[in-house]
Amino acid sequence: MITIQEALDIISNQNTEMKTELRSLSDSLGYSLAEDIIAPFDIPAFDNSAMDGYALCGISKNYTIVGEVAAGDLDKVNLNPGEAARIFTGAKVPENTTAVVMQEKTIVKGENLILETEPSTGQCIRRKGDELKNGQVVFKENHRITPASVGLIGSLGIEKVSVFSKPVINLITTGNELVEIGKDRLDGQIYESNSFALSAACTQFGFLCKTRNHIEDNFDAIKAEIEKILKDSDVLLICGGISVGDYDFVKKALEENGVEELFYKVFQKPGKPLYYGKKENKYVFALPGNPASSLSCFYIYVLPLLQKLSGMESPGLMKLSLPLSHNFENNSDKPSFLKAKIYNYEVEILNAQSSSMLHSMAVGNALAFIEADSIMIKGDLLDCYLIH
Amino acid sequence: MITIQEALDIISNQNTEMKTELRSLSDSLGYSLAEDIIAPFDIPAFDNSAMDGYALCGISKNYTIVGEVAAGDLDKVNLNPGEAARIFTGAKVPENTTAVVMQEKTIVKGENLILETEPSTGQCIRRKGDELKNGQVVFKENHRITPASVGLIGSLGIEKVSVFSKPVINLITTGNELVEIGKDRLDGQIYESNSFALSAACTQFGFLCKTRNHIEDNFDAIKAEIEKILKDSDVLLICGGISVGDYDFVKKALEENGVEELFYKVFQKPGKPLYYGKKENKYVFALPGNPASSLSCFYIYVLPLLQKLSGMESPGLMKLSLPLSHNFENNSDKPSFLKAKIYNYEVEILNAQSSSMLHSMAVGNALAFIEADSIMIKGDLLDCYLIH
Repeated sequence: MITIQEALDIISNQNTEMKTELRSLSDSLGYSLAEDIIAPFDIPAFDNSAMDGYALCGISKNYTIVGEVAAGDLDKVNLNPGEAARIFTGAKVPENTTAVVMQEKTIVKGENLILETEPSTGQCIRRKGDELKNGQVVFKENHRITPASVGLIGSLGIEKVSVFSKPVINLITTGNELVEIGKDRLDGQIYESNSFALSAACTQFGFLCKTRNHIEDNFDAIKAEIEKILKDSDVLLICGGISVGDYDFVKKALEENGVEELFYKVFQKPGKPLYYGKKENKYVFALPGNPASSLSCFYIYVLPLLQKLSGMESPGLMKLSLPLSHNFENNSDKPSFLKAKIYNYEVEILNAQSSSMLHSMAVGNALAFIEADSIMIKGDLLDCYLIH
Repeated sequence: MITIQEALDIISNQNTEMKTELRSLSDSLGYSLAEDIIAPFDIPAFDNSAMDGYALCGISKNYTIVGEVAAGDLDKVNLNPGEAARIFTGAKVPENTTAVVMQEKTIVKGENLILETEPSTGQCIRRKGDELKNGQVVFKENHRITPASVGLIGSLGIEKVSVFSKPVINLITTGNELVEIGKDRLDGQIYESNSFALSAACTQFGFLCKTRNHIEDNFDAIKAEIEKILKDSDVLLICGGISVGDYDFVKKALEENGVEELFYKVFQKPGKPLYYGKKENKYVFALPGNPASSLSCFYIYVLPLLQKLSGMESPGLMKLSLPLSHNFENNSDKPSFLKAKIYNYEVEILNAQSSSMLHSMAVGNALAFIEADSIMIKGDLLDCYLIH
């Protein structure tokens, strides 16, 4: 049995082969860049006005208005000392402009412009290249594209970006007790819902679970299903059948499919019987079948792999350190990821922590990490991982 | 000019008419429930084993193994005192089961089962109804569906859920200086990229910007475009043309389209010239054209409206209070939303805060709120709003 950190290190230290693709900027949100974005020209591309007001030539309190420049106008006004031009936000300032004054600080009488105070050189002018210089690296490879990145890349006139492809994910659920939603449930049976939750968790983080497949607890059937589904997967998620029961065939079926075990069993609660393996460039997670265990393992272990495979620079959930809103005792002999809720300034450990229970995870927004057999008091800082 | 809080209150206090729809559970992530989810049966639906091990009848250290129950098996084993049945995680425990013992704590010799220690009554049994009782409200109306909610609703066998529909959003950009990406850019012109950024911001939070439209700075054209696009919108976003310049026609064009102003101008930086209006059940935001201003206004004001219209219980960005990683002086005379980056335990105010600059927003992950003319020192707590 390995520690949480050892398991995370095994995932993050794997050398992964990555595919790239060219995507339209408007369809690139959440992807990570496969190459640096280089500015093809300065931003701003020309000196321009930060205000609606007047472009001024020379320092004075009185100017003669000789023209107008609206945003988008090409050069058409020349200023000589003592002259001013009406100008609008974003418009290119005329040659020889010393400063721009906002219109609220001026009086206009016919062609005469009178200022409250003398302008200072360069005021209200956004200079060419102030934000980015031609040739400058704007975003480095592996930068994850945010809405603001989309805006900035667009302002450079770049239509398509080279990004890392996202992994093809498929899911297999196992278990004779599972019934498909919509069918009649007999006594002793439960509805198969883990695949819905795991698929939704993929979606939440911008990944697509391509297929969801169910197979009964039969060794040959599981082995054959893994062989079939793994072919078309970069990442295969298997849910259930990975513990020590006589019907837990998944581990052996993976072995017989040539999947190399990278780890099995992590000293943690929930999710101890977690399996991670590899075959060529394909990765397999076998997740415990308890609903809260499988989702926890997804958030803590699967997500970082998916993000790493898609080239993201800092894989993993967002981590925060926040004060606990109440006293708490962890009676488990294992380090635990507990369902928690972050309010503005604090974190609360929720009730109903059993690995079979999902309600607290559904209404919470974080997993709080707490060491084995530890006693914490209100106000102690707790590491929290944002899940929603 | 109103305050930030007044503007937010106007948005949150509007009575909004909401539409509902029935969605497949597997396509419901991120939607908010339009009705309570009631448990149609207990969860667990039957007493079941939390472990791979043995179901025991009576308290002893020696039992006779009389059968086996795998997960999904229907009733087939009856236990009498002194008897045990092999059982697996999730399997229904036989009638008369006193406790379950995990297999690691047993020795088996033929039909004889020997325990290390006597079991305690009820151990390792998950009781019927432990998590949810038949008829219990599982999630209330307005609960936003998370991956764990999907899992729990699925375990109740519910295939379709009634949710609030998401608003139809359309976007108009204005400005003669704007050139479409892919075309040649002349001096004095810039690429139109705000619509890409705003559309991506919608996508990031689970909304769809249905159409993006560009119109030149011409009053009649803007008025006609607003009339046309507003018809098919629940929320219309307009970008640019809302300040005090002679070519800022948007406000007048909205008035002439019968849009009622709810507020115009917010005492803040960036994004002072923000307009919010309403016509019947349709809402209009006119956002300033500076890229960082329009995105900031989207995150702080537009997003809460979109989330409110889609029935979400607590609209708005996630808010945290975190210590500042350095000294900082806000020289602005207005309360400011500053581009910031949260690391594990602290928040850093980034460089390049100009409302025309997007890079810091692209690489950051938060907007930090800081009062006007304020001096803060390292370690002071700052309100931060998570944007990525």
